[in-house]
Amino acid sequence: MSLKIPAIVVNFKTYPESSGKEALALAKICEQVAHETGSVIMVAPPLSDLALVASSVDIPVYAQHVDDVRSGNTTGHVTMENIRASGASGTLLNHSERRIKVAEIHDLIGNARALHMATIVCTNNPGVSVACAAMGPDAVAVEPPELIGGDISVTTANPGIVSDTVRAIRAVRPDVAVLCGAGVKGRADVQKAIELGSSGVLLASGVVKAKDKRAVLMDLASGLR
Amino acid sequence: MSLKIPAIVVNFKTYPESSGKEALALAKICEQVAHETGSVIMVAPPLSDLALVASSVDIPVYAQHVDDVRSGNTTGHVTMENIRASGASGTLLNHSERRIKVAEIHDLIGNARALHMATIVCTNNPGVSVACAAMGPDAVAVEPPELIGGDISVTTANPGIVSDTVRAIRAVRPDVAVLCGAGVKGRADVQKAIELGSSGVLLASGVVKAKDKRAVLMDLASGLR
Amino acid sequence: MSLKIPAIVVNFKTYPESSGKEALALAKICEQVAHETGSVIMVAPPLSDLALVASSVDIPVYAQHVDDVRSGNTTGHVTMENIRASGASGTLLNHSERRIKVAEIHDLIGNARALHMATIVCTNNPGVSVACAAMGPDAVAVEPPELIGGDISVTTANPGIVSDTVRAIRAVRPDVAVLCGAGVKGRADVQKAIELGSSGVLLASGVVKAKDKRAVLMDLASGLR
Amino acid sequence: MSLKIPAIVVNFKTYPESSGKEALALAKICEQVAHETGSVIMVAPPLSDLALVASSVDIPVYAQHVDDVRSGNTTGHVTMENIRASGASGTLLNHSERRIKVAEIHDLIGNARALHMATIVCTNNPGVSVACAAMGPDAVAVEPPELIGGDISVTTANPGIVSDTVRAIRAVRPDVAVLCGAGVKGRADVQKAIELGSSGVLLASGVVKAKDKRAVLMDLASGLR
Repeated sequence: MSLKIPAIVVNFKTYPESSGKEALALAKICEQVAHETGSVIMVAPPLSDLALVASSVDIPVYAQHVDDVRSGNTTGHVTMENIRASGASGTLLNHSERRIKVAEIHDLIGNARALHMATIVCTNNPGVSVACAAMGPDAVAVEPPELIGGDISVTTANPGIVSDTVRAIRAVRPDVAVLCGAGVKGRADVQKAIELGSSGVLLASGVVKAKDKRAVLMDLASGLR
Repeated sequence: MSLKIPAIVVNFKTYPESSGKEALALAKICEQVAHETGSVIMVAPPLSDLALVASSVDIPVYAQHVDDVRSGNTTGHVTMENIRASGASGTLLNHSERRIKVAEIHDLIGNARALHMATIVCTNNPGVSVACAAMGPDAVAVEPPELIGGDISVTTANPGIVSDTVRAIRAVRPDVAVLCGAGVKGRADVQKAIELGSSGVLLASGVVKAKDKRAVLMDLASGLR
Repeated sequence: MSLKIPAIVVNFKTYPESSGKEALALAKICEQVAHETGSVIMVAPPLSDLALVASSVDIPVYAQHVDDVRSGNTTGHVTMENIRASGASGTLLNHSERRIKVAEIHDLIGNARALHMATIVCTNNPGVSVACAAMGPDAVAVEPPELIGGDISVTTANPGIVSDTVRAIRAVRPDVAVLCGAGVKGRADVQKAIELGSSGVLLASGVVKAKDKRAVLMDLASGLR
Repeated sequence: MSLKIPAIVVNFKTYPESSGKEALALAKICEQVAHETGSVIMVAPPLSDLALVASSVDIPVYAQHVDDVRSGNTTGHVTMENIRASGASGTLLNHSERRIKVAEIHDLIGNARALHMATIVCTNNPGVSVACAAMGPDAVAVEPPELIGGDISVTTANPGIVSDTVRAIRAVRPDVAVLCGAGVKGRADVQKAIELGSSGVLLASGVVKAKDKRAVLMDLASGLR
């Protein structure tokens, strides 16, 4: 399944506010906003809630991580085949909270392509972004780790990291989309992300910790238009 | 939730035959056999199917693994809080295909107890079994790695490893149950496991790869009586 | 080679003040103090300096860590055979800055014994200490991670963790020595450690960062008498 | 220190035949052949023998691996500062037997450059090679894992992997040298490696396991001319 862009990717992380029943509830809100606004909103629930969420909503559901092992004698892992069987459309890889090896990224991208699953590789700077783009994922999502979970959007605090990543990747792999993230909170951040040449944003606490999740999602979605 | 024994624990691993829709179907068969026979049958589906299975069956559902991190900024991990929110009753820890650190086992056992979740720590020999029992999990499941997935049950190939583990653990922690596994296939293996002093078996391929899964489960359950 | 006790174990960690030429210089000071005072002082230099230090001093030299792999096709690892060939007498295992898996600890202890090398397993509390002692190393060194590198000795801040560990281990494995560490600075700390039933101390910054390393070592050694 | 090419890099791995005293003996033979033939021969001894070897020979000595942590409270690791203090000129990174994370490679390359140490990043195919070259190491060494330790040289079994890697890297990072390895045994293999556009070879068992190590090294060195 190919990646739809421009997009807002909501990473539920493992927050209590977005686990179990709350994961399902938040995914339903995301689905509703996506349908009302016509925007692409993708959700990445906790791994243990993946199948439950994917079987309940009609928007793209992504895994937060996949292990570089195959289905079989691999107890306690999450395989690409598993997440496909669970109904996911693709996966994040190499999130700053779950970095993986370079040969694993390469292998997982190939494995995902063979199974028609999309891959979004998270990176921390333009240098790593170009390295990961060279391996041909659907997208690279650049996020300065020091801004993740913070109050200031990467598009305000460090717009150069986004534009540098876009420029560097376009020069070598124009087929790879660029997303950006860290500190994204609302409409202005999304608009700026698009202006800087990216194809959307990846965010977590800005939605998950919000009192009125629906209102935040409506605001974010308005930035894509 | 405390561990119910004697028990048959079915580890789905990440096999295609027990992932996604097949995970749900197999869990339903296990539930039916448990109810018909009055036996304790517990299931450990792929992590990505955990919430889906736990919300669909009325038998204990266990995670195959939990990471030693807390819910929050821990993308791509599976936390104890996550599996509890997903409806699981407990978790396997330290399976031979997903070994973890000794301080992690200790920390996870404490974390599980605080959340009223049960823990079954997998081990490979009597020495490691006693070490893990000393940390006070609900059960230790001893499985010689070289027999896992094979055709000969541990109870036939190496009964001494089971009786030695039972004896050694009873001497220091009689409150910790002992399970055994590797190569378990049918009624005679379960009976022998009980005779050797264990409180049940842990198995995977014997059920997952069986043509008639229900028949195998009925046969195994008959060994518990 | 069996562990000599009571002992002072100086962990050089990877500090610049105890790497390369400085590792050799500090090891020489330790040797001199050991010989002058008749005390057992053991040194654990950076892994890359192990053979250089072991071939230059006549006191026990320990590795800070060994990987659970065998010599051969294992580039970039440090094997038990490697450290023996380098002249070491044994190794620390499972230091709080380099935790390893429980099955690895068991395997490494067996491997060390076969090669006549001593093992000191580091732990973080009495529960983990008993678990590790059950696997039969030469010693367990309990160190509360939150006190490591700090200004207050474990023997002052938390003497109960030492006495509890000593009591618990004596009950099940009286053949395993207990060391303690974290914040150890001088004579009084060593004396208190011995009073609490331990067989010595493990320390790092107290020696490595000292202006007059020889004076600190003389003071520590006086606490062993 | 910049990488000297064309070069023969001898990886001692952790073989008994190249550990401890044998590490020193083999490094001396490499030094002698390098001086007699005027060829660049670099050695990567076991980590525990690094300082001993680096202080004893006058040819470039490389670490087999460096951890992505800084010198200080990092017991049991090998830091870039450690290997520099031990007298090494640089390090291999990401060997197939010790793969590391992509962000670690990026960080270590930057750290090495700041300390004037050279980096050779090992890779398994052209895709991963380009990704790693994009991060600007001194060299990439491509080695198909299935041929490592075997009897047929990569230059015979799969010359395309070498020429494809050379072409792909030259297109994006012509400043990054390409080495190749796996199954390299003698003069013809080195000559072919150079013909294919690489700047030399990386090998282990071909030298370490040879009865007459000096003769093999003389033969290999003759291929560089």
